[in-house]
Amino acid sequence: MAFFDMGLDALEKYKPEVHEEADFDAFWAATLSQSRQAAGEPRFEEIEHHFRHIKIYDVTFSGFAGQSVKGWFLRPEGEGPFPCLIEFIGYGGGRNLPHEWLTMVSTGMAHFVMDTRGQGSGWSPGDTPDPELSPGNGQFPGFMTKGVLDRDTYYYRRVFTDAVRAYETVAARKDIDSARIAVTGGSQGGGISLAAAGLIEGLDAVLTDVPFLCHFHRAIRITDSYPYKEIGEYLRIHRDQSDRVHKTLSYFDGVNFSRRARCDAFFSTALMDMTCPPSTVYAAFNHYAGRKEIHAWEFNDHEGGGPFQMKKRIDILCDRWGL
Amino acid sequence: MAFFDMGLDALEKYKPEVHEEADFDAFWAATLSQSRQAAGEPRFEEIEHHFRHIKIYDVTFSGFAGQSVKGWFLRPEGEGPFPCLIEFIGYGGGRNLPHEWLTMVSTGMAHFVMDTRGQGSGWSPGDTPDPELSPGNGQFPGFMTKGVLDRDTYYYRRVFTDAVRAYETVAARKDIDSARIAVTGGSQGGGISLAAAGLIEGLDAVLTDVPFLCHFHRAIRITDSYPYKEIGEYLRIHRDQSDRVHKTLSYFDGVNFSRRARCDAFFSTALMDMTCPPSTVYAAFNHYAGRKEIHAWEFNDHEGGGPFQMKKRIDILCDRWGL
Amino acid sequence: MAFFDMGLDALEKYKPEVHEEADFDAFWAATLSQSRQAAGEPRFEEIEHHFRHIKIYDVTFSGFAGQSVKGWFLRPEGEGPFPCLIEFIGYGGGRNLPHEWLTMVSTGMAHFVMDTRGQGSGWSPGDTPDPELSPGNGQFPGFMTKGVLDRDTYYYRRVFTDAVRAYETVAARKDIDSARIAVTGGSQGGGISLAAAGLIEGLDAVLTDVPFLCHFHRAIRITDSYPYKEIGEYLRIHRDQSDRVHKTLSYFDGVNFSRRARCDAFFSTALMDMTCPPSTVYAAFNHYAGRKEIHAWEFNDHEGGGPFQMKKRIDILCDRWGL
Amino acid sequence: MAFFDMGLDALEKYKPEVHEEADFDAFWAATLSQSRQAAGEPRFEEIEHHFRHIKIYDVTFSGFAGQSVKGWFLRPEGEGPFPCLIEFIGYGGGRNLPHEWLTMVSTGMAHFVMDTRGQGSGWSPGDTPDPELSPGNGQFPGFMTKGVLDRDTYYYRRVFTDAVRAYETVAARKDIDSARIAVTGGSQGGGISLAAAGLIEGLDAVLTDVPFLCHFHRAIRITDSYPYKEIGEYLRIHRDQSDRVHKTLSYFDGVNFSRRARCDAFFSTALMDMTCPPSTVYAAFNHYAGRKEIHAWEFNDHEGGGPFQMKKRIDILCDRWGL
Amino acid sequence: MAFFDMGLDALEKYKPEVHEEADFDAFWAATLSQSRQAAGEPRFEEIEHHFRHIKIYDVTFSGFAGQSVKGWFLRPEGEGPFPCLIEFIGYGGGRNLPHEWLTMVSTGMAHFVMDTRGQGSGWSPGDTPDPELSPGNGQFPGFMTKGVLDRDTYYYRRVFTDAVRAYETVAARKDIDSARIAVTGGSQGGGISLAAAGLIEGLDAVLTDVPFLCHFHRAIRITDSYPYKEIGEYLRIHRDQSDRVHKTLSYFDGVNFSRRARCDAFFSTALMDMTCPPSTVYAAFNHYAGRKEIHAWEFNDHEGGGPFQMKKRIDILCDRWGL
Amino acid sequence: MAFFDMGLDALEKYKPEVHEEADFDAFWAATLSQSRQAAGEPRFEEIEHHFRHIKIYDVTFSGFAGQSVKGWFLRPEGEGPFPCLIEFIGYGGGRNLPHEWLTMVSTGMAHFVMDTRGQGSGWSPGDTPDPELSPGNGQFPGFMTKGVLDRDTYYYRRVFTDAVRAYETVAARKDIDSARIAVTGGSQGGGISLAAAGLIEGLDAVLTDVPFLCHFHRAIRITDSYPYKEIGEYLRIHRDQSDRVHKTLSYFDGVNFSRRARCDAFFSTALMDMTCPPSTVYAAFNHYAGRKEIHAWEFNDHEGGGPFQMKKRIDILCDRWGL
Repeated sequence: MAFFDMGLDALEKYKPEVHEEADFDAFWAATLSQSRQAAGEPRFEEIEHHFRHIKIYDVTFSGFAGQSVKGWFLRPEGEGPFPCLIEFIGYGGGRNLPHEWLTMVSTGMAHFVMDTRGQGSGWSPGDTPDPELSPGNGQFPGFMTKGVLDRDTYYYRRVFTDAVRAYETVAARKDIDSARIAVTGGSQGGGISLAAAGLIEGLDAVLTDVPFLCHFHRAIRITDSYPYKEIGEYLRIHRDQSDRVHKTLSYFDGVNFSRRARCDAFFSTALMDMTCPPSTVYAAFNHYAGRKEIHAWEFNDHEGGGPFQMKKRIDILCDRWGL
Repeated sequence: MAFFDMGLDALEKYKPEVHEEADFDAFWAATLSQSRQAAGEPRFEEIEHHFRHIKIYDVTFSGFAGQSVKGWFLRPEGEGPFPCLIEFIGYGGGRNLPHEWLTMVSTGMAHFVMDTRGQGSGWSPGDTPDPELSPGNGQFPGFMTKGVLDRDTYYYRRVFTDAVRAYETVAARKDIDSARIAVTGGSQGGGISLAAAGLIEGLDAVLTDVPFLCHFHRAIRITDSYPYKEIGEYLRIHRDQSDRVHKTLSYFDGVNFSRRARCDAFFSTALMDMTCPPSTVYAAFNHYAGRKEIHAWEFNDHEGGGPFQMKKRIDILCDRWGL
Repeated sequence: MAFFDMGLDALEKYKPEVHEEADFDAFWAATLSQSRQAAGEPRFEEIEHHFRHIKIYDVTFSGFAGQSVKGWFLRPEGEGPFPCLIEFIGYGGGRNLPHEWLTMVSTGMAHFVMDTRGQGSGWSPGDTPDPELSPGNGQFPGFMTKGVLDRDTYYYRRVFTDAVRAYETVAARKDIDSARIAVTGGSQGGGISLAAAGLIEGLDAVLTDVPFLCHFHRAIRITDSYPYKEIGEYLRIHRDQSDRVHKTLSYFDGVNFSRRARCDAFFSTALMDMTCPPSTVYAAFNHYAGRKEIHAWEFNDHEGGGPFQMKKRIDILCDRWGL
Repeated sequence: MAFFDMGLDALEKYKPEVHEEADFDAFWAATLSQSRQAAGEPRFEEIEHHFRHIKIYDVTFSGFAGQSVKGWFLRPEGEGPFPCLIEFIGYGGGRNLPHEWLTMVSTGMAHFVMDTRGQGSGWSPGDTPDPELSPGNGQFPGFMTKGVLDRDTYYYRRVFTDAVRAYETVAARKDIDSARIAVTGGSQGGGISLAAAGLIEGLDAVLTDVPFLCHFHRAIRITDSYPYKEIGEYLRIHRDQSDRVHKTLSYFDGVNFSRRARCDAFFSTALMDMTCPPSTVYAAFNHYAGRKEIHAWEFNDHEGGGPFQMKKRIDILCDRWGL
Repeated sequence: MAFFDMGLDALEKYKPEVHEEADFDAFWAATLSQSRQAAGEPRFEEIEHHFRHIKIYDVTFSGFAGQSVKGWFLRPEGEGPFPCLIEFIGYGGGRNLPHEWLTMVSTGMAHFVMDTRGQGSGWSPGDTPDPELSPGNGQFPGFMTKGVLDRDTYYYRRVFTDAVRAYETVAARKDIDSARIAVTGGSQGGGISLAAAGLIEGLDAVLTDVPFLCHFHRAIRITDSYPYKEIGEYLRIHRDQSDRVHKTLSYFDGVNFSRRARCDAFFSTALMDMTCPPSTVYAAFNHYAGRKEIHAWEFNDHEGGGPFQMKKRIDILCDRWGL
Repeated sequence: MAFFDMGLDALEKYKPEVHEEADFDAFWAATLSQSRQAAGEPRFEEIEHHFRHIKIYDVTFSGFAGQSVKGWFLRPEGEGPFPCLIEFIGYGGGRNLPHEWLTMVSTGMAHFVMDTRGQGSGWSPGDTPDPELSPGNGQFPGFMTKGVLDRDTYYYRRVFTDAVRAYETVAARKDIDSARIAVTGGSQGGGISLAAAGLIEGLDAVLTDVPFLCHFHRAIRITDSYPYKEIGEYLRIHRDQSDRVHKTLSYFDGVNFSRRARCDAFFSTALMDMTCPPSTVYAAFNHYAGRKEIHAWEFNDHEGGGPFQMKKRIDILCDRWGL
């Protein structure tokens, strides 16, 4: 059915109880602290290209446990300091080739695009492996159940830490105005953005579109679409691991990060989105602790607002940052 | 089967006889002449935006029979004259929002994006209707059989004329260097590009990726994929119209335009492309009358070279035009 | 789920508010008046065939704006006047070959089969083009969004006017008893029948099976099936046109025609019909202003009652008209 | 691939060796003889209806082993004797309701429609059971493997015998001109027609469209479409029964009946027919022993010529029989 | 939607009214009595094999109306008497090869595997035909509508009688302890088990997993999955037979057998089971008259608990029978 | 098409050139040597169960780089030494629960079932993680491209080493007769078996059914089925890595292991197998250097001979080992 989830009225009021472990904050504080200690100096290698008025850098920075993570950094020519948008990528994609990222930098802001470890072979190429130093568990193909039996080995522990480290790497640059840094992304990129908003102090804004990784408990019970379905597939086989998996996921749920986030937030969702059902997005939105707005695209599936939402993203940031 | 068409060796030699009517050139000369006579002044309305160093214009120009066709014109700030790339869009798409087209203009060339009449509701929005002044025929949903019973009423007569008129509109501008104009596009946009290359004198180059609208006779017999299949679907019902349809299509076949084209050509194709099978692309390539190159992407379906091909496109044009 | 819509109890009470513009009647009065003024003489060309006791005519009559529309007219040999059934065709089909229409005329009534403009390449051949004299809008493949941004350019304005003109053409014949004319059709044919029932004075009866084009607002939100989905696909891309599209559709909604119709009505629907969900049919039925009956086929999808419903259609009309 | 079978040139020459057991004729002679001996009087019960100039009878006749088989018999009013077309039905369908069969009788010929035992629950209703008096074998759902391990228990032994008995029942009627009886059908109906042509002396003609049940050995190896696939599915499980199944099928192969048939034959096939691939039809056609014609529909799948072929069927028979 | 049926809370309370005819018990008493009278001596032929410590017998016993039904009987070497598990097979499967059944006998119990008449060509091979002595009705491919117009000709009348006869055959053996016989099966095998539990006096236990053939009235309205859908397909065509079909099915509904069963029962179901929806299983469970337990597998479709449930089955029986 | 690959005659002669690097043997010798050096003592923990006459052990042994790999070891009670079959599992599966493996041990041989690292969440549960100590590359979901850019990081380097180590672990046991050890498996398990046959000295036999991981170059070009398709998907995105990927795969190609294997081999394949096309199996078979047999199942897809092949496997080994 086209509208398979709640109606808009119910969505706007939907604020479910989502499980959270007592040591949620301690877990993340320890995780980030360890990775900061393992961090080395980032490398920003300027690359040649055909585009005017901008500089592009091939970035290698220290993410989780000091492991190397790739990214692109694009910024206007000149001294700066520039405001900066950090972007996370949707499930399966990688940082792509740099010419694919000219839109935001054309407005006069800097743009940092973080590669997603292990991904980047599904629709846009990526360049960052995801080594597992300690044994996790066998997994259903994909990334959703990689190490899912333990919060310490779970894949998104590494990804969310990379995201915080990306912020810290950018914020430390002299050509960036650290008071004007925002994070964004669609789908998985939106989910990582929410985690970043919950974990980073001093972020200016989060723009999260059709975010993934929110309210897992409901998501894996109301949709058969991948990638949420990967978790259901895992539990279909590992019938005895449901509690353990749910416990792990609670440390990575966008709802729990939303409760902690304080920066201004701009959400979007789509009412026919089978991949990231609107109720899971509203669950995060309604719990979001900072100032917030949401736009619901009525006749869209997971593509959401597409170029219309991109235009909103540009307008919001340019207005906010005087570009 | 992954490789469903000929092998690469056979493709490189494949130069089939493709039917052509004796009055092919006369038909097109008359068509273009009539539309030139019906043409009014184009409108280039500059729009506001957030992007630096460039100007963007919302264009309305006179296409087939003087009918209004929309487009975007993006060019660097400054006097020019600039070289210009004219781009045609894939099947189902429209000119989209202007922020989607920043890549080429960022290199210092101008970029003209032509809306495809009637289309623009399948994946990117368009704004140009396709009125039919004289009655054509009932059609299978889509555009492939719109007016297909007669060369005079066939949909692509109007589209290809729009493309020539787009060139003439751009070439007449003072800020454009008319000796450095190229056409490009992927899929349908690649097919329109080939038609433009065959119909326009003085074009500098054509860059055509996974082109559609080539060697119809084979295409509708070896693939079940849309949009070629629309023609098969039409003939499935109108069992008595096959000769008439094939006759019409011969006036619009990329192979016949390739025989006439003289500018430098850069083709790409994909060996697993079910939508525009590689043999139909090589049929056009091997008949192409000018200097030419082709790149075959081995493990790709209709997405072809994607960002890798885009990088080639940028490199070819910037090298050629000194950008 | 097999039963995806409301249960039968709820369906029988379902009488939703459906939007209607104040000038609904004025719009249709003006539309019909203009087309009547543009009308020329119909042509009824008798054709040769192998069938006994009947005459068959290839018809060309003046539909919307005086444009030519095709049809078949079959009647018993003899003087008449005969009662007449006017039939409209399901989505994608055309008037087909005349031997496909022998059932009704075999009972002693006349049968007029109207071709549906533009259609007739999906499952049965048609012969009527749908020229668009004034520019409408780009469209999603199919007919549902052809000209949908404006009531004046919308495709069904032309089709429904053709239907009224078909009635007027038939009613003017001496061999037809104008007091005994009914309209019928399944799916789109049923939707056109309802429009005809709402627009034509003096119609004897309407027999509408699994009718399409009813309660658009709900239809495009509860089913992913085509052709309703074409509208959703259009709005998926043209995210800013929802209000405009809904306003246009209100002039063409079967519910609004049902409110105005006064002749006896015989509806059928199917409880597993994903194409024309039963709630959209009951919405029209429960608003229908004349005498009415409905039959709900429990285990059927869009094929509805099939030959069983055809038998009902024959029995109803023969009983009513003394055949 | 749209054209998945041989090209037309190869098809026209394709005359494969098809296995045949030495006692093929003896088997059929004994089978028919036994069923003739078990036959009782047929019942022709005239039914009431609304159609003019014709009479319709609900028929029960003795088929295989004297078992009751249903049919419809439609004939013009009057004395006769009339020529008669006997029609067999496609896979899954039944004799339907009688109003569905008015076309042929409207030309002045009689029309006998034989129900297919056991079938009639797939797309048109049937009324004839298929009791198995002697134990056969377990089967894959459908009819293709019912009793397939032995020629004596195979389902089509009963069906083909029913077909011969239908002919004999009709030919014995005074109102029928036994010199002018033809058989026809599409798909399975076409396959039964070929069997009838091979088994009946004195038949005037066979009109067989997209016939099924021809050249089983090839059919089950080149298509994955049902119903041929039912046999492949059976052998997929009963891996040790391939020889036995092929031996049984040889007694029922349309190629072997074609070799024996002498009446005039009119075949049609479709070049994109995945259900009854054209090579299997040409195998029967090229072996056909009588005068013969074939029409190949180029862009059609299993629907073949549809209404166009129906028009041919009417024209052939009316011309032949002076109607 | 992943969870398409009721939630667990509602399932646990779901005890619907299910229709039952007054002569339900009389019908079954007469059916079983007649088959007992027609029964001959079973044949247990010991076969050679490579497995240690066990004996395997190829069984032919008298089922419905004395017809031969096949099975495998495996038991430990030694004198016995052994407890025995009787197993019925899922839809489409047959008794398979004997080496596939070593698990239960390895625990020290005997194991009788009953072939399902007519089936055994879908996924595991079977060897028992299903002759129909008295004419039934045409059917939709499969077994669900075979003879469904009358309780006396319905397929499952024969199957359920075979099941009771299997029990009686086993219970009569000296090497079996008739006080320790249980029945089991998954899906159709689970449905047959429930029927056996309702029809057999003195059974020790029933272990029924994701049982089929329960609460037909709901099942055919909430799922589009086969094999329940076969009944919907039949009624889709035989639109006038719904009452008759529902009346027949009431004699074979697992809910009605559950009301009569007294032995201990162990059910399992799966909350995402589209084939045998959990509400239809809970309908039987909640009506079950004996002691009972149920396990609901949360993230499973029709595979249910798979090897985990098999482990439960082993543990339950070994604990119960001291193995 | 059902038969999509070569015909049987061509298959029997198909012996293609398959690329092999000069240091193939050196690479494997070094890999195995390093892992042997890292190996610790295996753990065989006897578990409780309900099965008679056998012992079952939960095994943890040192695989690649000394990493822990799980398995089940089942053997008859008694002293031994027993012959032993080592089994590898199909793609996606894990070692499952131990009661699923009773067949082979029931014949009197020991049975060692190796868990496949990382897998075991697709259809049967597994318990072995696949940690990546050194960074590899991003990957397409699944295991086929995990670390595929370098032979040293490629996933199957670890798996094949585990397989050799499994053999060495078993062969060292006193209760095993090291002269009578065979390896087996279907699909991926068959591919691992071939690698084991090529890498292990002194193996008695290999039984490989529908083996995967053979003739990659052809496989990824003739089938669209997973898991081979994972490699095509990777190259679809990483368009510049084809040479590197093909070079890596050459170290893991079953054809290259077949060239080196000397023990007796029993292959099976299926002529309709889209997952592991028969030509890729015959490529390995025809290159196999030892004594060999092959059985081709004609009407089977990837299920191959199923229980019939299992019976062959039992018969071959019991005959060979005198059981």
